[in-house]
Amino acid sequence: MIGIEEVYAAWRRIRPYLHRTPVWASRRLEEQVAKRLFLKAEPLQKTGSFKARGALNRALLLDRPRGLVAASSGNHAQGVAFAAGVLGVPAVIVVPEDTVAVKKEAIRAYGAELLDRGVTVENRDAVARRVARERGYAFIHPFDDEAVMAGQGTVGLELVTQVSALEAVLVPVGGGGLIAGVATAVKALAPDVRVIGVEPAAAADAVASFRAGRRICLEHAPTTVADGVRTLCLGEKTFPVIQRRVDDLLAVSEEAILRAQALLLTRTKLVVEPTGALPLAAVLEFAEALPERLGLILSGGNWAPPGV
Amino acid sequence: MIGIEEVYAAWRRIRPYLHRTPVWASRRLEEQVAKRLFLKAEPLQKTGSFKARGALNRALLLDRPRGLVAASSGNHAQGVAFAAGVLGVPAVIVVPEDTVAVKKEAIRAYGAELLDRGVTVENRDAVARRVARERGYAFIHPFDDEAVMAGQGTVGLELVTQVSALEAVLVPVGGGGLIAGVATAVKALAPDVRVIGVEPAAAADAVASFRAGRRICLEHAPTTVADGVRTLCLGEKTFPVIQRRVDDLLAVSEEAILRAQALLLTRTKLVVEPTGALPLAAVLEFAEALPERLGLILSGGNWAPPGV
Repeated sequence: MIGIEEVYAAWRRIRPYLHRTPVWASRRLEEQVAKRLFLKAEPLQKTGSFKARGALNRALLLDRPRGLVAASSGNHAQGVAFAAGVLGVPAVIVVPEDTVAVKKEAIRAYGAELLDRGVTVENRDAVARRVARERGYAFIHPFDDEAVMAGQGTVGLELVTQVSALEAVLVPVGGGGLIAGVATAVKALAPDVRVIGVEPAAAADAVASFRAGRRICLEHAPTTVADGVRTLCLGEKTFPVIQRRVDDLLAVSEEAILRAQALLLTRTKLVVEPTGALPLAAVLEFAEALPERLGLILSGGNWAPPGV
Repeated sequence: MIGIEEVYAAWRRIRPYLHRTPVWASRRLEEQVAKRLFLKAEPLQKTGSFKARGALNRALLLDRPRGLVAASSGNHAQGVAFAAGVLGVPAVIVVPEDTVAVKKEAIRAYGAELLDRGVTVENRDAVARRVARERGYAFIHPFDDEAVMAGQGTVGLELVTQVSALEAVLVPVGGGGLIAGVATAVKALAPDVRVIGVEPAAAADAVASFRAGRRICLEHAPTTVADGVRTLCLGEKTFPVIQRRVDDLLAVSEEAILRAQALLLTRTKLVVEPTGALPLAAVLEFAEALPERLGLILSGGNWAPPGV
């Protein structure tokens, strides 16, 4: 299981290439929810999300790979393409054939090779791993990888060193890479700070797994506006870290997610994608159960309004 | 005519209550337009736009007013409501009866009294001045006032002291308060820097006036997505300052404004309203005519995507 040493090492490794993102305050937002809020602004990270941290940490630990491969049409794909750029090697991004055209264009726009012929949601990972094997490239998993977790944990390392006297940190949960890393950093540096995961109620496999004490997977990809957390279950490697170091998990409604996103846009002027608004959605729905001084990890900002 | 001394004095006066907004860079945006861009982020100013600067400078120069009055349903209204809060006096905002409900609610939400009964676009200013007279409140004009101009000029004072070696500053133009103030600061501190105004082609009264050497007014309020610059003409007091200190004015298409706004949202993650995107729209449409190192004044961010 990863420890704080891996997070420190990841931070030293990726620091020359990435931003130490700022922590934003918004008086108007705080008045609205009657809490002190410390907003870790990962939309301002390179590639527009925290995913560049884990992908780059993984990539920098590889022994001279000839290329990188990811199976993702979202922020992880951008993270891997960015990491490949740092290494000066090609990136291959594997996406299902029916991925919307705008996402395919975006992948090509950041300089990656798109591979979609004959690819489905079901065979995507297998195709990506086969391509990696055939070409001698490295496949980078979006979350179930200790180097990826340690890289994502640098978000928590930064947050607790940027803000003193936090009482809890709220973190979006999909496959669990971000929260596993963040919990590792927070519990080592500020053990009194509660680490609370947030996922959509429409995709509440992590809450179910946490309560049951074993991984429970969804049968079908869930329908939620929070498209960054449509994973079927927590990872084999992320789940034990979450069991040991996370204090609680909360599930929020689609309505709360959209309201939280709109509040972030209009009050802070920061573009946050729905997945990145999960922590604020939990503040809106569970205010009485939460302490006063909250760190919210706004995980990404890769979003455009309809019609743009 | 105001000079740099008035801008300095305004800055000292308003500084305790407002932000010195940051200047943002965006490598991805710079690559897209092949220019160096320095983005003065007024969406991050209190009230979400630069208008708080001019309104507060005007208010702080008044001799103990019993209240403040504005005729505006936009950013100037918020600026005046904010200034009234600083002074601890009431604010009255006069808007046409047919103003959309969401704007009326927003005005009440920031603690101002809304006055709309019997008010039209035509009689709005007269109503506001009458209310001010009757109650002993001070009417604050959105642009045609030297204290307002000097307050808006603090944007330019900050920008040229935050960024060295600018070649031009691009500024949205409506009534001309912002550009008159900014030009006053820029030409005093960095006379080599060109000051270029940008307005929608659909409302190109400023370009026409500048070319003709006299104020030319539109007959009807123009239709443009840049709803912050729907004024009929430049002010009597702003026009002479613009004639003397502004180097050029450009008119941009609605399409360029919307494209510029979308680029700002997706590339910088900053919420910018269409009016605030006018400078980038000019970069998109007049790239070859512009120098390399450009300061763009992103004047405000009070915007929400459709349906929010």
